[in-house]
Parts: sequence; C-alpha cells; structure tokens
Amino acid sequence: MDELVIGADLGGTSTRLTVATTAGSRPATVEGAGGNPTTHGVERAAAELSSAARRALSGLDPAAVAAVVIGVAGRATLDDKRAADIFAGALAAAGVTARPVFVGDAEVAFCSATPAPDGTVLLAGTGAMAVRIRDRRTTTTSDGLGWLLGDEGSAYWLGREAVRAAIAAIGGTGPATTLVEAVSARLLDTAPGEVLDEGSAGSVQRRRSALIRAVAARPPIQLAALAPLVVEAEAAGDAVAAAICDDAAARLVRLVGDVRGPAEADPLVLNGGVVRAQDAPVGRRVRRLIAERFAGEVLTAADGIAGAAWLAVRDIRPQWSGERLAQVHALLTAPAPRH
Amino acid sequence: MDELVIGADLGGTSTRLTVATTAGSRPATVEGAGGNPTTHGVERAAAELSSAARRALSGLDPAAVAAVVIGVAGRATLDDKRAADIFAGALAAAGVTARPVFVGDAEVAFCSATPAPDGTVLLAGTGAMAVRIRDRRTTTTSDGLGWLLGDEGSAYWLGREAVRAAIAAIGGTGPATTLVEAVSARLLDTAPGEVLDEGSAGSVQRRRSALIRAVAARPPIQLAALAPLVVEAEAAGDAVAAAICDDAAARLVRLVGDVRGPAEADPLVLNGGVVRAQDAPVGRRVRRLIAERFAGEVLTAADGIAGAAWLAVRDIRPQWSGERLAQVHALLTAPAPRH
Repeated sequence: MDELVIGADLGGTSTRLTVATTAGSRPATVEGAGGNPTTHGVERAAAELSSAARRALSGLDPAAVAAVVIGVAGRATLDDKRAADIFAGALAAAGVTARPVFVGDAEVAFCSATPAPDGTVLLAGTGAMAVRIRDRRTTTTSDGLGWLLGDEGSAYWLGREAVRAAIAAIGGTGPATTLVEAVSARLLDTAPGEVLDEGSAGSVQRRRSALIRAVAARPPIQLAALAPLVVEAEAAGDAVAAAICDDAAARLVRLVGDVRGPAEADPLVLNGGVVRAQDAPVGRRVRRLIAERFAGEVLTAADGIAGAAWLAVRDIRPQWSGERLAQVHALLTAPAPRH
Repeated sequence: MDELVIGADLGGTSTRLTVATTAGSRPATVEGAGGNPTTHGVERAAAELSSAARRALSGLDPAAVAAVVIGVAGRATLDDKRAADIFAGALAAAGVTARPVFVGDAEVAFCSATPAPDGTVLLAGTGAMAVRIRDRRTTTTSDGLGWLLGDEGSAYWLGREAVRAAIAAIGGTGPATTLVEAVSARLLDTAPGEVLDEGSAGSVQRRRSALIRAVAARPPIQLAALAPLVVEAEAAGDAVAAAICDDAAARLVRLVGDVRGPAEADPLVLNGGVVRAQDAPVGRRVRRLIAERFAGEVLTAADGIAGAAWLAVRDIRPQWSGERLAQVHALLTAPAPRH
C-alpha cells in the first residue's frame, strides 16, 4: 500500500510543502508565508508549517503520513531539542504524528537533482556557498557565511559591487559605467540623468555621500535587490558589469574548488537565482569555468521540496533497490503541472 | 599681537580641541566624550564641542579667538546650513563668535604632517581611504565607503578576515591557523583549546554556525576589535595572519594608486592605527610597497587638531610668507608635553 510522506522547505520568503506518495505522485503542494526559523523565529516558522500541512492534507489522511523531511537554511540552529519539539507539535496539530527530520537547503537541492549519494552543490542566490555531499549529507562547506562575512558571488555581493562600481565611476577612481545611473535612480529616487549634472569636487563628494547614506539607511541584505541591475547592464554591453559578472563567477567556482577535486566524477548541482538559468550572465560564466576545471555532470536543482519528499520515501523504504528509488526520484522531481 | 585660534576634531570616541596662538604656542588642549555628528547626531556633537571650548578657554579670552577649524569624518553631511548654525551657536555659548569652518579628517591629517598644499593621504584605522589633496582640499577619494561597502584593508576588514580565516580552517577549506583559537576565545567566551575538541562533520557545522551567529549578534563595526588578533598572530609567525596582512597592505596601496601617479613628488601622509606605527605588520608592508611604487616623501600624520589649528592660523594670516607659516606649523605640530 502507498504511504504518504511530506517534503517541506522553510524559506525566508515562503513556506512550501508537498504531500507525496511512496509511488512517486504528489497529490498536493501548497505555499504559505515566509517561515525560516532563523529569520522569523521558531514559533512563527512552526505555525506556518502547521498551516501549510493542514491545507495540503485536506481530503487526505494525515495519519497515513509516515515520514516528514524539512529543508531549512541554517539547519544547525535547529539542533536543540526544544525547537524540534515545537515543530513536532505543530505537525501533530495538523494530525501528522511522524517526527520531522531536518536537512540543510544544500542537501535538499542536491537530492532534488539526483538520486546519487555523493557530489557537490553550488548555491548562489541571495547568499552563496559550495558544499561537499557524501551519503546525501554535507561534509564540507565553503562560504555560506552570510552577507556580513562572505556570500561572495551572491546576489548580495553583485548588488554591493554595483554600488561600489557606481561610486568609483562618480569619483573618477573607476571606469565609466551605466551602473551610475541605474544604481542612483534606484537608491536616490532621482530621474535617470539628473544625478549626472554636476561636476565639481564638492558635488562629487556629495553624490558619493548620498549613495553611501542611502545604502546605510536600508537593511544591508537589500543590496541583493540591486543584482538585476548588473544583469541588465551586462546584457546591454556594459564592460564594468561584465567584469563584475566575471569576478562573481570566478569567486563561485573557487568555492567549488574548496570542496571538490578536479577529477571527481560525481554530479555537481547548481541552485539559486544567480546560477540556475543557463543564460544568466553569471550562470553562463560559471558553467564555462566549471567545464574547464572540473569533471562530472553539471545538473540544475529541481524543486527542493521534491528532494525532501524523496528523502522521506527513502527513510521508510530502506529495502528498496537503487533502481526503484531512482524511478520514484524521477517521478517526484518531474516538473509538476500548476494547480 | 597674537590672536587665538581653535583647532578641533569631532571623533566617534572623543571630542578633542586645542587653543593655539598665531605665534605657534598651544596654551590649552582638552578632550571630551565622543561627538561625531554622523554617529552621535548634530546636537550631541555641538554640546560636546561647546563644553570642550569652555574648558579649554578657562583663563583665556574667548573673544580673542579669531578662527575655528573643525575636522570631522563625513564632513559632507554638515553642508546644510542648519547644522552649521547649531555648531556656531554652541561656540557662541562658550563666548566664541568666530564662525567654524569644517574640513574632512583626511584634510586635517594632511595639514598636521606638512605645510605643503598638495599630496596624498592614506588613512587606515577603523575605516580605510586614500585621498588626493590639492590646495589642502580633497579632490579625489578612493574607498572610505564604510564597512558595508568597503574600507578594505582597515581594522574592520582585518577583523573580518580573521573570522573568515578561522572558519575556513575549522571547516577544512583553509590552512590551519592560530586565529581559530584566538577568534573563538574572543567571540565565544570559551577557554583556548576548548573549541578544538570535536571533529565530526556535525560538530564542524556547529562550530562554524556558532562563530557566524556570534558575529551576527554584535554590531558589525565591532569586527574591528579583532584586528589586534591578526597583529599578534603575525608577530608570532602565523602564516595565515601574515597573508592577511599582505592582502591588507596590497589593498591599501591600491587605494593610493587610485589617487596618486607613480612619479608624483608631493608628500604622502599615513594616518590611522593600522598604518601609523612603522613596526605595525600592515604599516611595515605598506611602507615597503609604497617605496617600490611611488615617489615622494612618506610622512606620518601628527595630531589632527594641530593641523586644524594651523589651518585656522592660515585663514587669518593670509599675508604671511610660506616660510613663516611653515615655522608656525613646526611649532604647532611638535609633540606637545602632557598636562
């Protein structure tokens, strides 16, 4: 008889959850408000999880859920028993008695792309890290340090470099770039062109100061919202933006080198908005550099909740062959029709 | 007849003020609480200035003060008339009717080191910037962007690199370094050695996470307090700390190159705790690289308030010869006996 499993992701911008069967179908997938325990607190995250589980299981039997795997960025913060108990209680309130297993977001990304046990993940979205995976668990991590200490090559880093390049161009210590207008228009709410009027040393200092103050007045992570300006400027042929993309790609591929030898043949999985799309300027450069320096197949991550659901199936079907689990993997991670 | 002038510095950690004569003596120097208008607000800064002026002028005639020059980091924020009026009012409350002139901290540092009109300042303390000086005014600035966007090679940057190096060593993506124990002991309040006990992948992740969380729990600028750990580790022969110092020096000298041509013969003034001392690990490296790549004399900044006082003398003695002003400069900036 098919049992049910739950795969979930507790993200900063959304809580996502899928109910799957051991046969590989996914009868329900729901999305709720952001509920990352690190950014929103454990109670809020647990409440979002409970609400998502209740909605996803409407018309299904909650008691048939035999395993729950939850992907969460910063999993290490959940190691204490109190948090685990709160999440278990939240699921129990939705009728699910299986105790949740927490895995890192790099691990669910890896398992969404491949049923293989070993390989590498390069994650570059708002943050950036490379992870060595052995037996579907993280063994070594490079970067992933958050915006304050690292995340080099991430959307945050791209946005910060855009501001730095704009300020250098304004001050005459860097080459001219269309990022001056694009960044100023976004940060200073001025019409494009308006900020370019003045030229004296005093006005240069004021324009530098205005940009520095505008960045300082916002939460630092909002620099990530400027990353698309780099992508647009690169597409329009701006050489400074292209150099930023070169630099980002070089840093990201260096992270891969920290956790992967050049001859390793296991899969290398890309995830995150900066590198997922094959035609994204950084993604394109990363793929080219990886092809030059590393062996093994390069895969793009599928939906992380499908990877989490597959891990849940594995947990309750340890006797199944690798072939059978790979079949279920293919079914679970196939692009789902929109409901 | 000798007139009086005031030179002051509105710093983040202290407000400092000296009363000087046009003949080059300094009858009073006082220090008060921090009063930088950007970090503490204009009202608080003005109150500290007023209190310092009152104390310094006790026994002197406030009406004899003919000029006031005030050095302040982030001078551009003071360009609006309201702030200038508040400071003028604060001085008037101490009996000083001369309207204050505000100059940047790089400008007072330059004028403390030399009476020459043109040259370069490399400032590397909590923050970092290089400034091109023409006619004693900043014409071009490289970096000085604050910790969020730049300050590369500063004490903040050194502290951040110390944490990054410690985390890389813990995770196995970087070489071993004594910074692991030094940084962990400082950030985690653990006894040295204690943090090195465990070795499994899970415990590595927890130790990484503990350091990341400890940094995130403090104001980012407090990373600057970790800079001395790099200096100590370098002195003890740690290769990773030495590489961080190499990197800091290279970044600082690159800033100099942004604002100074290789053949320029004007003075190059060093200021800030990271580079002032000739035997500081970064200062030593910076001096060596500068000697290789640039012409001109390398000077160390004297007390900025002496530079500010000299600018005030210049303002009210425009008819004096360069020689006479240079004599007054030498007198004002000579190391003062402690009171």
